[in-house]
Amino acid sequence: VLLPPQVVGQRSETVRRSNLSAIVRALHLRGPLSRSQLVRHTGLTRSAVRGLIGELVSGGLLTETPNEPDGAPGRPSPIVHPDAEGAAVIALEINVDSLAAAHVGFGGTVRKLVRVDRPRAHVTADEIASDLAKLARPMFRMASQADALVGIGVAVAGIVRRSDGMVRLAPNLGWRDTPIGHRLAGALRSDLPMAIANESDLGGLAEHRRGAAIGESNVIYVSGEVGVGGNIIVDGQPLIGAAGYAGEIGHMIVDPGGAPCACGSSGCWETEIGERAMLLRAGRRANGGPAAVDELIAAAMAGEPAASASVARVGKWLGIGLASLVNVFNPTLVVLGGVLGRIHPLVADELASTLEQRSLTAARQLVRVTPAALGVNAPIIGAAELAFEPMLADPACLLAPVRATRSAMASA
Amino acid sequence: VLLPPQVVGQRSETVRRSNLSAIVRALHLRGPLSRSQLVRHTGLTRSAVRGLIGELVSGGLLTETPNEPDGAPGRPSPIVHPDAEGAAVIALEINVDSLAAAHVGFGGTVRKLVRVDRPRAHVTADEIASDLAKLARPMFRMASQADALVGIGVAVAGIVRRSDGMVRLAPNLGWRDTPIGHRLAGALRSDLPMAIANESDLGGLAEHRRGAAIGESNVIYVSGEVGVGGNIIVDGQPLIGAAGYAGEIGHMIVDPGGAPCACGSSGCWETEIGERAMLLRAGRRANGGPAAVDELIAAAMAGEPAASASVARVGKWLGIGLASLVNVFNPTLVVLGGVLGRIHPLVADELASTLEQRSLTAARQLVRVTPAALGVNAPIIGAAELAFEPMLADPACLLAPVRATRSAMASA
Repeated sequence: VLLPPQVVGQRSETVRRSNLSAIVRALHLRGPLSRSQLVRHTGLTRSAVRGLIGELVSGGLLTETPNEPDGAPGRPSPIVHPDAEGAAVIALEINVDSLAAAHVGFGGTVRKLVRVDRPRAHVTADEIASDLAKLARPMFRMASQADALVGIGVAVAGIVRRSDGMVRLAPNLGWRDTPIGHRLAGALRSDLPMAIANESDLGGLAEHRRGAAIGESNVIYVSGEVGVGGNIIVDGQPLIGAAGYAGEIGHMIVDPGGAPCACGSSGCWETEIGERAMLLRAGRRANGGPAAVDELIAAAMAGEPAASASVARVGKWLGIGLASLVNVFNPTLVVLGGVLGRIHPLVADELASTLEQRSLTAARQLVRVTPAALGVNAPIIGAAELAFEPMLADPACLLAPVRATRSAMASA
Repeated sequence: VLLPPQVVGQRSETVRRSNLSAIVRALHLRGPLSRSQLVRHTGLTRSAVRGLIGELVSGGLLTETPNEPDGAPGRPSPIVHPDAEGAAVIALEINVDSLAAAHVGFGGTVRKLVRVDRPRAHVTADEIASDLAKLARPMFRMASQADALVGIGVAVAGIVRRSDGMVRLAPNLGWRDTPIGHRLAGALRSDLPMAIANESDLGGLAEHRRGAAIGESNVIYVSGEVGVGGNIIVDGQPLIGAAGYAGEIGHMIVDPGGAPCACGSSGCWETEIGERAMLLRAGRRANGGPAAVDELIAAAMAGEPAASASVARVGKWLGIGLASLVNVFNPTLVVLGGVLGRIHPLVADELASTLEQRSLTAARQLVRVTPAALGVNAPIIGAAELAFEPMLADPACLLAPVRATRSAMASA
C-alpha cells in the first residue's frame, strides 16, 4: 500500500483562519504596518485585509491609527499596530548558570525580564520550579486583562521531547527523564498552555525571527555555552526532527579517537569547541564558570600565548565541523552564538581558511559567518516565540472567546 | 528593519489550485482511490471533491469507473484513476557506470526504461547528451497525445544548481560548471521544461515516495555508489538547501587526519565508506568497476577474511557517520542505498552497536535502519518525480491549455 506525504485540501473556514494567521504573523514579526503593506505582504485583496483587520481589532489584538499623508493621491492607508497588551506570554529559561523569566507582549515587546545567577550544581526539578515561580509571579500580575496571557514558553539546557516537555537528558542539571512541565505548572499554579524546548533550538529561533538571521531561509546557528548546541533553519522553518531532538550538532563526531564526551561517545564536536576544552587547553580550571570564560577571552584578546593558542584551536575545529554542516545543509548564513560569537573576531581568519580547504566550493561560495545579535537572552526570546506560536498559527482560536468575554462585560 | 519569514495569505483562486493539487498528488502517489477516500485524504467536502474531479476528468488527467457494491448503504463511491497517458514525463540518468532513459506516466507508471553501461571515463557533455538523446528518442514517440508530455527530469552524478541545472562539479565525469541542461535540450530538440538534480537526492526522493521510506517524515538516505551521496527528508520534504547542494553527506568530515578525498578535503565519510576504500582495503583494484564490487560482496558473504574485514570496517564507519546524522536530524528511518544497502546484512550488528555507543539515547530509540527498496533505478524514478512536480503542485496550469486544445480539436 502506498502511503503519500500528507495531502490536505482546504475548506473555506480553513482559508479564513490561514489568512488571519498571515496578518497576525506579519504584524508580530515586522511591527506596525499600513493596510497597503499588509496587502503586499500577505498577497490578499484589499477588501479581505480590511475585513480581517476589523475582526482582529474587535478581538482586541490590533489597534489602528491614521497615517500621515504621503503625497500619493487618495487617503493614506491607516497603520495597523499589534497590541502588546492584547496578548502576551510568560517566557522562562533554565540555563546552567542562570534562571530567567520574562513577560513578552504580542509584537515581541519584552515588557519585563529578570535573570538571576545560579550555582553550577545538580538540583531537583522541584527546586528549579519553585525558584522560577518566584521570579515569574510578578510577570503574571502584569497582564492587563485576565485573558490576555496566551501561553508559557520554557527554554531548558537539555534534550527535550516536544510533545510533552519531558527533559530526556540534561547532564549539567543532573536530569534524566524529568517532567519539568508538570513541576512548573504546579509551582506556577497555572493551567496556561506550556511549550518546552531546548535552549539552543530556541536561541536559533530567536536569532532567525529577531536577530542576526532575519529573512534568511537556510541558517546554521551554533551556540557555545557549557555545552555546544545549535539549531538549523531549513527552508524557513526550524529543524525539529521526529520528536524535537534534532540540532544536537555538538554531538557530531569530528574525531572518533578524540576525547570522551559527557554524552557517552567520544570525539564529539563539543569536546573540541566546548567551554571545557577551551579552558583546559589554555591551562585554566574547567569549572571556573562564566568568570573563567570571561578571563580567558580577555587574555586571548590581549595576546596571552596559552589563551590565544587555545582559542585558535577552537577556531580550527569550529571550521572543521562547520565544513561538514555547510556540505550537508547548503546554508546562506552561519550564526555563532554564546562564547563562539564572542571569539569570532579572533578566529575569523582561521575559520575562513578551514572552510576554504574543507567545504565544497559550490556550497561555500554561498555562505557567510556572523556572530549572533541577541546575546545571552536569545533562548528566552525564543521561548516567548514558541509560546506565541499557537496564536500565530491560528488566531481565530483566541478571537472567539475573547470577543464573547468582552461583549458579556460590555452588556453587564 | 524586521523582515519576517515569508507570510502569504490566500485568494480563492489560490485555494482552488491548491485543492486541485491535493487531489492530483494523492492519486499520483497512492494510485486509484474512491471519491470517499479522496474526501478523507484531502479533508475537502464531498461536493468540492466532486467538482474538482470533474475538471480533472474533462482535462484528460483522470478517469472514473464504477465501484463494486461494498455492503454499505447507498451507491458505492466511484473509483478515480490517474491516467498514465493523460500526462507523462521523460526521465534521464547520467551515472558513472551507466546511462538510462525512461517514459513515466502520471501515477508513476514506468511505461519503458532502458539502461546502457558506459565506461568509467571523462566525457564531454555533448557526447553524453548525444548518447542520451539516442536512448530517449523512442520514449518521446510513446506519448499518445502531442501535449501529454509535461517535462523532463534528469539525475546526474554530480553537484547540481537547481535553478538552472548547472553541474557545478562531477569529478567522476570530469565536469566542472557544465551546463548539461542546454546540451540536452539541444540534443533532444525539445523545449519541454527540464529539471536537473543530483542522483542521490533523487534516489532519496524516490525511496520516500515509492520505496522504503513511504509515509515517513524524517528520513536519512545514504547511497554508496562510486561516491557517497544522500538525501534527507525533513518534516516530509526533501532537504534542498539554498541552491540545491544540500545532502552532501559523503563529505561530512569524520576524521580530519584521514585519507585525502576527491573533493580536496581529507577524512570525508566517503574516504571510509566509499567503494574505493572498500575495494582497496580488501586488497582489490580501486577501479575494477561494478564487477569488482560484485566480486567483493560475494567474497565477504562467503567469509573471505580480507573482504570480510574490509566490509566490517565500512560497517563501523557507517555507524560513526550515521550517529552524527541521527544526532543532527532525529530521524525515524535510515535507508541504505547502493552498495551500502547490499552489505547491510553483513554489517547490521556492527552498525547497531556503533549507533548504541555513539548516538544520543533519546534520538537512537526512535530510529531504525533498512536497506533501500528500489535498487539501481531509484535515481531515475526520482528524476521522473522531479519532472512531475510542477504539475503536482499546480495542475490548473496544465488544465487550461489542455482543455483549450481539446475543445479546439473537437470543434474542428
